[in-house]
Amino acid sequence: MMKNTAPIGIFDSGIGGLTVVKKLLSFLPNESIIYFGDTARVPYGSKSDDTVIDYTRQDINFLISKNVKLIVAACNTASSVALDKLRKSYKIPIIGMIEPGAESALKRTKNGRIGVIGTYATVSKKAYSKEIHRRNREIEVFEKACPLFVPLAEEGWLKHKATYLIAEEYLAELRELRIDTLILGCTHYPLLSEVIQEVIGQGVSLIDSGTASSSFVKNELDKLAQHSPHAAKSFHEYYVSDLPAKFKHVSEQFLGQPIENLQKIELDYIISLNQ
Amino acid sequence: MMKNTAPIGIFDSGIGGLTVVKKLLSFLPNESIIYFGDTARVPYGSKSDDTVIDYTRQDINFLISKNVKLIVAACNTASSVALDKLRKSYKIPIIGMIEPGAESALKRTKNGRIGVIGTYATVSKKAYSKEIHRRNREIEVFEKACPLFVPLAEEGWLKHKATYLIAEEYLAELRELRIDTLILGCTHYPLLSEVIQEVIGQGVSLIDSGTASSSFVKNELDKLAQHSPHAAKSFHEYYVSDLPAKFKHVSEQFLGQPIENLQKIELDYIISLNQ
Repeated sequence: MMKNTAPIGIFDSGIGGLTVVKKLLSFLPNESIIYFGDTARVPYGSKSDDTVIDYTRQDINFLISKNVKLIVAACNTASSVALDKLRKSYKIPIIGMIEPGAESALKRTKNGRIGVIGTYATVSKKAYSKEIHRRNREIEVFEKACPLFVPLAEEGWLKHKATYLIAEEYLAELRELRIDTLILGCTHYPLLSEVIQEVIGQGVSLIDSGTASSSFVKNELDKLAQHSPHAAKSFHEYYVSDLPAKFKHVSEQFLGQPIENLQKIELDYIISLNQ
Repeated sequence: MMKNTAPIGIFDSGIGGLTVVKKLLSFLPNESIIYFGDTARVPYGSKSDDTVIDYTRQDINFLISKNVKLIVAACNTASSVALDKLRKSYKIPIIGMIEPGAESALKRTKNGRIGVIGTYATVSKKAYSKEIHRRNREIEVFEKACPLFVPLAEEGWLKHKATYLIAEEYLAELRELRIDTLILGCTHYPLLSEVIQEVIGQGVSLIDSGTASSSFVKNELDKLAQHSPHAAKSFHEYYVSDLPAKFKHVSEQFLGQPIENLQKIELDYIISLNQ
């Protein structure tokens, strides 16, 4: 069986993708990771499609320049807007958030009623609905924007009374719609999963993009026989395009451990990279 | 007395500056307004100083291309980072948020204890503290970041129970510090002034940048004899660099009236403008 010790590349518009790294590391502990968070240009959700495609191409080129063997787009906006268009220009496998999330939800639902929560940008694009309906037109999908969840997660108010009240307000409608599966369509939301689970009800399965995409990554590495061998020394490197004062503190909460090997990369350098 | 029917130009990184327009229109109802919201590149607070200076220069050049007679930088980040550096390159008067806010607070405080609330970016730059201390070193200034206030204002949750809880958490410290004056150091915050006033206590004077800067604008127009005459037909034009689906709805809440004459301007065009 072939082996490949090259790292997996993961990018996001900011720090949310660190929840995907966390899941990936627990799922595939032998793998090395190169993370890029485009914190200078966050959020992607409010930008035009053309801009998001440009930025995503630059993010991918940066990771390729680091000799990664596979790329995870740990950003719902980049996944829904740019990946279909960019994949054909690259030989390297690129895994987004939408397909794994949709597929996991379809496997899990019993009553065919799936909820999706995300930012306004993600929900207005209806990427999860389209992906689910491409596979099964019978499923009912209900999308709901929960814009306060991102700043609540970044504030670290993971079980604050205000967080419960806000979750009550956002999720009441989905509860009434009797969904049995809920896709967390934003990489920030796993931090709030305890509150979300409690409010939406224990009977509803939560689909976390990190877990869903990690199993896609594993399958892809299986298929290509590119897993890192057990004995290999793994490394984790983190790059950001800007380093706000609060980054380190917040990012540790997302990753679940302190971040080491964190470097700022100049945007000019990222923009200058070509495939 | 000389008169000038040219419009006043106002810019912000997004929609927050509309609360300043609202105050300006009620204060100087004869004046015409050209507003530019750089919604494609919001927020400025997370960008480097050089980037904020570049963007601010472009925003100013765009307004100058519209033949405005005076410019209001209705953005705390642009005001604190860029104006000192840019003012000397322009003949046109440019009024920011920091000086008017600081001056109003100094006039209002009796016990010499002033609070400032704003985003993480604004508070970490301590622009209000510096401006206040430049005028009076004896004053005690306490700055506190309230990052959830922006998304709460944009959600329109202006009197939600969650908003009260969040305000309680943010403002408890300032209440204990016995401030008698509180600067709303973010143009979004006037939407939450009722909750903020109730939580901080009726004895504390709130300083709203819109009101404070409007009186600076009036003084400047007095000085230059550039007021628009009563009989002139005023007009209000709004430009944004991107138009998210929710813009119209949210912006009306900020402005207090429906927005007419709203146009999207391509960023490429903005960037191409030179003084």
